[in-house]
Amino acid sequence: MAIHDFASQRLMVDAPLAPGADIELDREQTNYLLNVLRLGDGAAILVFNGRDGEWRVHLVLTGRKSCRLRVDLQTRPQTPQSAIRYLFAPLKRARLDYMVQKAVELGAGHLQPVLTRRTIAERVNLDRMRANAVEAAEQCGVLSIPTIGDPLKFGDVVASWPADIPLVVCDEEAEVADPIAMLSRVAPGPGGSVAVLIGPEGGFDPAEREVLRAKPFTTAISLGPRIMRADTAAVAALSLVNAVLGDWR
Amino acid sequence: MAIHDFASQRLMVDAPLAPGADIELDREQTNYLLNVLRLGDGAAILVFNGRDGEWRVHLVLTGRKSCRLRVDLQTRPQTPQSAIRYLFAPLKRARLDYMVQKAVELGAGHLQPVLTRRTIAERVNLDRMRANAVEAAEQCGVLSIPTIGDPLKFGDVVASWPADIPLVVCDEEAEVADPIAMLSRVAPGPGGSVAVLIGPEGGFDPAEREVLRAKPFTTAISLGPRIMRADTAAVAALSLVNAVLGDWR
Repeated sequence: MAIHDFASQRLMVDAPLAPGADIELDREQTNYLLNVLRLGDGAAILVFNGRDGEWRVHLVLTGRKSCRLRVDLQTRPQTPQSAIRYLFAPLKRARLDYMVQKAVELGAGHLQPVLTRRTIAERVNLDRMRANAVEAAEQCGVLSIPTIGDPLKFGDVVASWPADIPLVVCDEEAEVADPIAMLSRVAPGPGGSVAVLIGPEGGFDPAEREVLRAKPFTTAISLGPRIMRADTAAVAALSLVNAVLGDWR
Repeated sequence: MAIHDFASQRLMVDAPLAPGADIELDREQTNYLLNVLRLGDGAAILVFNGRDGEWRVHLVLTGRKSCRLRVDLQTRPQTPQSAIRYLFAPLKRARLDYMVQKAVELGAGHLQPVLTRRTIAERVNLDRMRANAVEAAEQCGVLSIPTIGDPLKFGDVVASWPADIPLVVCDEEAEVADPIAMLSRVAPGPGGSVAVLIGPEGGFDPAEREVLRAKPFTTAISLGPRIMRADTAAVAALSLVNAVLGDWR
């Protein structure tokens, strides 16, 4: 892990990436490079497209207000999509932005909004979620953008859950207090898959909690004696899952 | 751990707390209770003062725009100050607010700004940090407000560090990748004390890193293969320390 460095600029693009290729930019990207970053002809940045790894490119000015990028060389091969699924009750705007960014930094490969009884945010802006995921990936050197699912109802998620993928749930009434001990008992599913479900502010309602407890694929972990905001619990739970079951070992 | 519930209002006050005591409120607190929360005569909330535990109180209107609180009964005894010290290079405004809030939720008992070579924020607003710490404690049921140290230079912190308190540092070049294995080797200091140091965006500079490595009291942990923002690394590191050495067991 490296701490983020604002000096290295990374941009997500759509185009295929190969040595010598030219990348056309949309208006927003052009504006970002020329007017926000104030890059000039020949300036080097990094790009990725979610498929071909990370490449160094340089800027080619094609007019006073237009440019394209030319690909120089690959700096990192493509990394596989993370097998961590992150399920969460959507929060209101700023906290949801934050939660999506953090989930990407913590390597979640799939983001799944789940509508629980106590979920406050009824509408989920998937375009905004995707924009936040791309921005976090750009900043944090994640080369595969997480997929984002359409919001699903809690009951449907649990009823149709694939039994071979463990679902980690945060629950203050977990059987064993020690979250590392609990996670050590979990056997990841196909391809190392594991899912983390974070409830809404206020928690799951008692009926939902009962449903979760009754399912053989769930593992409840406790995150200590304090009350946590949902977005904090998300970062904490994903950190522990990475450390015990994921790629922090 | 419970997920935060916005329904339970908690207020930090200065006054001693005992059954039947009256609590005078300052202008800001009065405004908050009457105009923001819109509480009426007799409304119940929770208060704490960092010394006497948590108490249920009820609001007594004393005029059209004034009120006091009367103490009913204790709901939780005082919890001890956490033995986790959190040292960090201050970030810019919004990210620092966030970082302080999260550190309180994760049970840090002392917050210590450390000025490193790559620290961007030169001025640290300690009043603002304290206000954020109080707000997080109110929201998250933490009964002892962390102490906040005046900013110190990196060199001074390390040179005067008490050798019996382990200092956990996040370093991508840690000797062993597995952070749980590394933390399991750490012996907490007096009273269970342990400190976590998070560098600035861009990380420690090479000379600082060398200094940290040379000290017998430091333990370097790695937080996986991705780049993280400093505030994310803070939440991740504090979560792992809580789980391996702190009160999440």
